[in-house]
Amino acid sequence: MSETVTLTLQDVHEVAVAVLTAHGFDDTHAGAIADTVTAAERDECPHHGLFRIPYYVDGVRSGLASGVAQPELSELAPAVVRVDARYTFAPLSLALGEEPLAALAAEHGIAALVVNNALHVAALWPEVERLAERDLVAFAFVAAAPYVAPAGGREPLFGTNPMAFAWPRGDRPPLAFDQASSACARGEIQLRLRDGRELPDGAAIGPDGLPTSDPAQALAGAQLPFGGAKGSNIALMIELLTGPLLGDLLSIEAGERDTARTGAPCGGELVIAMDPARFSVHHDREARIAHGEKLFAKILEQEGTRLPSDRRYEARLRTPSEGVTIPASLYATLDGLRGGYEPEPA
Amino acid sequence: MSETVTLTLQDVHEVAVAVLTAHGFDDTHAGAIADTVTAAERDECPHHGLFRIPYYVDGVRSGLASGVAQPELSELAPAVVRVDARYTFAPLSLALGEEPLAALAAEHGIAALVVNNALHVAALWPEVERLAERDLVAFAFVAAAPYVAPAGGREPLFGTNPMAFAWPRGDRPPLAFDQASSACARGEIQLRLRDGRELPDGAAIGPDGLPTSDPAQALAGAQLPFGGAKGSNIALMIELLTGPLLGDLLSIEAGERDTARTGAPCGGELVIAMDPARFSVHHDREARIAHGEKLFAKILEQEGTRLPSDRRYEARLRTPSEGVTIPASLYATLDGLRGGYEPEPA
Repeated sequence: MSETVTLTLQDVHEVAVAVLTAHGFDDTHAGAIADTVTAAERDECPHHGLFRIPYYVDGVRSGLASGVAQPELSELAPAVVRVDARYTFAPLSLALGEEPLAALAAEHGIAALVVNNALHVAALWPEVERLAERDLVAFAFVAAAPYVAPAGGREPLFGTNPMAFAWPRGDRPPLAFDQASSACARGEIQLRLRDGRELPDGAAIGPDGLPTSDPAQALAGAQLPFGGAKGSNIALMIELLTGPLLGDLLSIEAGERDTARTGAPCGGELVIAMDPARFSVHHDREARIAHGEKLFAKILEQEGTRLPSDRRYEARLRTPSEGVTIPASLYATLDGLRGGYEPEPA
Repeated sequence: MSETVTLTLQDVHEVAVAVLTAHGFDDTHAGAIADTVTAAERDECPHHGLFRIPYYVDGVRSGLASGVAQPELSELAPAVVRVDARYTFAPLSLALGEEPLAALAAEHGIAALVVNNALHVAALWPEVERLAERDLVAFAFVAAAPYVAPAGGREPLFGTNPMAFAWPRGDRPPLAFDQASSACARGEIQLRLRDGRELPDGAAIGPDGLPTSDPAQALAGAQLPFGGAKGSNIALMIELLTGPLLGDLLSIEAGERDTARTGAPCGGELVIAMDPARFSVHHDREARIAHGEKLFAKILEQEGTRLPSDRRYEARLRTPSEGVTIPASLYATLDGLRGGYEPEPA
């Protein structure tokens, strides 16, 4: 169980590209997906690292995702740009939409990027962090497959529905958070199932509607929103923002579409960007950023606190030289997939 | 303790206007504030009803707020409009900004309203609900005075920092929620102190940093964010969106400005509006709204669930004919204030 393999970040990228191209992803998609997987491993976010590669492979093998269709950019309104992912995984579409979104935000003050018909298994912090590296403030929202019961209910209906937010910090990496509106990330439950660890209280109910700490029961039952009714409201908001608003799928509809149970939900993503130089009479981006720094210093004055992205950035200082560690079993799976070997579906 | 007075909604509005004008508010401000107070009583949200009138009065009596300055509208960017409240309470500025914001959202697809230098003691659902009645999707964010400790810390730093969201429902009243990023609303703690009731678990810590259910200890210590670190991240996001982004005050700065401890924090409010006709290739607002209804029906199929605005709308059906009930002690306070009588400051 505890055997591990250590890889350089370059190894991570190469393994990801090799596995993806062996399964029919073209270079543009394989590169964009490998970039996000490598960023996750670099920041020691294993849920969204190489652990996710088999999901991408399953998406294409099932016929539910394309590894080669090219995303198409269009304009929906003067401040709203759209990328139709054409049933490919989201990273390439997000990369394509980033520059137009940033340009619209600078022009109008606020702008939105709509990504439609994309398959989502990646984290959201890479897209908001990249926008904040351009000195923009950014939100991102995405729905998922139906995993989470609404507050008071017991049947899965909402996705784990993450939202991400990023704030520019000038010469430092942006402040960013990316959090599921479920009490626990789906990937965390999957990792605990793999590793034989229990769930924290309040994470899930079993198929009987009763609280459970067993990852298998949770996966068969329903996850719970974080923070009770308030978290449930945020999950509901994200369903509306990414499904009905964008003319795309609700989590329940994404679940129905995923007939092969690949775990890669299809749907919309909404990204909003704001230019801090256009939101105050001062029109002074540096003063806006400095004011944020005052708040961060006040938080960190208090013992026991940290900023939401600090753990990732600490990892980022280490992993380029030290490499990253993944379970030997995952490495063996990827090695098998790399040769185009296809294990029997579960 | 249990004596009450029943008022018609017209009575509520008249009492509010009478008290405010007796304390130097002009008709435009008194009317806008009375509208929001009456809407809160109509929807049985006592935290934001007549209970709040003494806060408005204290704001003007202390010299920290003006009851007569006229808010000024200007443009910050093609899709960003600003109202400078000029140290008046927010309702009139929000009313002034509503139409320009709606027009910009229709034109650009997405737009923002920045309100600066406003004093905030009202709920946020009125402004997002009004935008959704115009068939727009809307967010609102506001900071507050420093009441809430960041996750892991023990000193008040964040405001209760509410966010509101509304979604249009065609012929029905919009779906809307308005929730503090603290576990408990400040007004709820104040009401429980008044009524001698304990706080729920997880609401607050006392000045010693230990959990407390005593409202007085909570007010002397710090409130806690809802949902642990995730709620703390939302509180942090709202601080950044309403202070540094808008060139306005952080909650800690609003607390420093409130030298008279009126409990009416000064600062920025950010409202974002999106036109659902401009966020999908279908360009069909009715289909977007119908898709939302599908989600709501799926939620309500599950026993034990409700939509976030349902309780308010149920009250709204009753109170125009049945009137609303307020504590006799509050009525007596308002009656005293109505004549311009000024009780000794506490």
